[in-house]
Order: sequence, then C-alpha cells, then structure tokens
Amino acid sequence: ALAPRLAAVNAALRPVLASGSPRRRELIAQLGLAAEVIKSTFEEDLNKAAFAGAGEYAAATAAKKAEEVARRAEAQGRLVVGADTVVESPGGVVLEKPADAADAKRMLFELSGATHRVHTGVALVLPGESAARTFHETTEVTFGELDEQAVDQYIASGDPFDKAGSYGIQGAAGVFVSSIHGCYFNVVGFPMHRFHNELAVLIDSEGLLPEDAD
Amino acid sequence: ALAPRLAAVNAALRPVLASGSPRRRELIAQLGLAAEVIKSTFEEDLNKAAFAGAGEYAAATAAKKAEEVARRAEAQGRLVVGADTVVESPGGVVLEKPADAADAKRMLFELSGATHRVHTGVALVLPGESAARTFHETTEVTFGELDEQAVDQYIASGDPFDKAGSYGIQGAAGVFVSSIHGCYFNVVGFPMHRFHNELAVLIDSEGLLPEDAD
Repeated sequence: ALAPRLAAVNAALRPVLASGSPRRRELIAQLGLAAEVIKSTFEEDLNKAAFAGAGEYAAATAAKKAEEVARRAEAQGRLVVGADTVVESPGGVVLEKPADAADAKRMLFELSGATHRVHTGVALVLPGESAARTFHETTEVTFGELDEQAVDQYIASGDPFDKAGSYGIQGAAGVFVSSIHGCYFNVVGFPMHRFHNELAVLIDSEGLLPEDAD
Repeated sequence: ALAPRLAAVNAALRPVLASGSPRRRELIAQLGLAAEVIKSTFEEDLNKAAFAGAGEYAAATAAKKAEEVARRAEAQGRLVVGADTVVESPGGVVLEKPADAADAKRMLFELSGATHRVHTGVALVLPGESAARTFHETTEVTFGELDEQAVDQYIASGDPFDKAGSYGIQGAAGVFVSSIHGCYFNVVGFPMHRFHNELAVLIDSEGLLPEDAD
C-alpha cells in the first residue's frame, strides 16, 4: 500500500503535477501527495480519430503532457504525473470546453436525460525514464431532464466555461446529476483510488523507494 | 422545475433545515436554497427492527427531526426539511458513529473490499401541516481492500468520529472508494437531485407559491 509511505514518496520522488487544474491539485493533495505544479505547454491537439476510444485519447494526451514536463531541467529525477479529463457525449462525441454560451447550452442539452461517460487519462513518468506509464478510468454519469431556465442560470454563473462538457459536478451542476456509476473523483478530474493503487504497484515493482520499510 | 423559482421559494417558504450537519448545509446552499439551521433535539432512538429496511429507518428519523422543529414557534408558516443519513454494512447492519478508535477500525474493515449502502432519508413539513412527506435515496459504495496502516492513519486524523460508518467520502477517505452507484451527494449527506425534483412536485401540487410565474 502507498498511504503509509507517502512521506517517503514525497521526499524521494518530489512529485510534479503537469496540470494547472486547481480541482486536480486539490484531489492530489487530499491523497497526501505533495506535488509541485508545473503546467504543461502541450497543445492537446492529438487526432481523436486515431484512438480506439475517448479514454485512450485522454490517456495519450495525459502522456504527452507528462512527457513534455519530464524533459525540463527542473523535473529531472522526479516523478511526473499528467492527467487529462474528457467528456464523451451520449452519442459518443468528445465534448471540449464550450466556445460560448450557445455552445454550452447545446452541450448541456445533449447530456440532459441521458447517460454519458467521463474519462480521465493519467500518465506517470518515472525518474530516469522517458516514456510514461498510462491508464484511464471511466465513470458513467446520468443527468436528469434539464429545465431551460435552470440551464440558462447555470451558464450565466460562468461555471461551464473552463470545463470539458460545460459542467462541473462539484459545483452548482451537481443537482443535474441523478446518478453516477464509477469513481466520483474521476469526474471531478482525478481518479484517486485507481491512481493510488497504480502508483503503489509501480513503486514496488520498480523499487523506487531506496529504503523501504514496508 | 424548481431552479428558476428558488428566489420565490426562499422568500415565500423561508426554509428551515432541521439538521446541524455542516456538510448538509453546504449541499443545500449549493442547491440555491437559503435555509436557516434549527437543529432538532430528536434523540434518534427509533427501533430499527420496526422498519422494513435501513432506508425506511432513515426516512422516519428524518421525519421525527423535521416534525420536532416544525412544532416550534419560530418555524410556523415555513418549510422544514429534515434529513438523516445511515450507513448499512455489507452484512446489512446499520453502522452508527464510532464509539472510539477500535470501533472505527472494526467498521472500516467491515467495509473493506466490499460494497455497502448509504441511505439518506429526507422529510419535508409544509407550512400548515403537521405530518412530513418523506422519501429516501440509496447509493451503493464500493471500497477497495484497505491497508491497516492507512486505516490507522485515517483514524488518527480524527475524521471518522462524527460520521456514521466511520468515514466521510468527501475527505481523506475518498481514496478508499473505488466506485459508487447512485447519487454521490447522497453519500455526503443530502440527495440534491432527488430533493430538487420532490420539492418541485410538492410546490406545484400544493400551490405553495402564491404568485407562480412558471
């Protein structure tokens, strides 16, 4: 398990989070990982059609973010974590951040009264390696039937504009969600449970902690 | 729908929340309901064996809380909302708040590597009525396999002691949870989506808003 060794992880691997999302930073802190944020400059312009699914696309984007940051001088000898969250509409289309209010409204009504999928891809670049280990986690999210006035109010609040799919489950849009199936924190932006387990396995298999008392 | 009429609801019904839980108060504020907290003195001592299930027990407890507050002079003419959240172990036993650290540890290992159910009962007492309308919402929560050192660390943080089932999904225990099925906010303590819909139906069927522009 990772939790009892988090202090050692923080000291030995000096983790870096290659993402500027404040929600993601909070979830990683909640996990006990003391990560420094070094935002990636990767353009997030991979060709979606080249991937088997939206989850694979998110994982590849997360890897590009992590690898870009891992090449920098200040990241040498450190664990770099990249992440990317995408919303896949009920019709199977990847929803980006909305361009404007009309775009947000269109997206929210695509989600209304239906189930869509949220994928977060995560990539870890280990000290001394150039390629990332990646995985993605998927959560199903079901919206109730949305009311036009409620949607207009939500859009007027400004909350949708920095969010893929035009909503944040942790804010005022939480009331739109009747049910989810999977990891809630994955929808917010980081799959805490899965990440914890994947990192624990990696640390053990790679012997990343020099003096491991576990 | 309720959302466009929340200002009217707040003005006409001056809602009261008959619960002292800060988490529940936050969720109700997130919903847009401006509720005054008047904590119930109900002892929460109903006989669990008298109910068909843990959800019905939670709903009845919520009703007792709401009805006690609704009888007070300061609640006359107002909408009173009661709520009660219970955790039902994988073996079907209602888990209360832990008595001490050993009790918390026992409960957390009952939840480890298994799926349990969280029920929140909600009761609404309408202005001029003595009996509450009640419902309950159920969410399934699946924990990964817990590590003893991680559990000890979590208990040492003090977080479990004011929480039924010895954990709060919104805090450091979030990493224990691999998956949920149902409403996340119901696990935190208040089923926002369901409550919104139930209140909207009640307001319409009872004509509770005197000048309804909807």
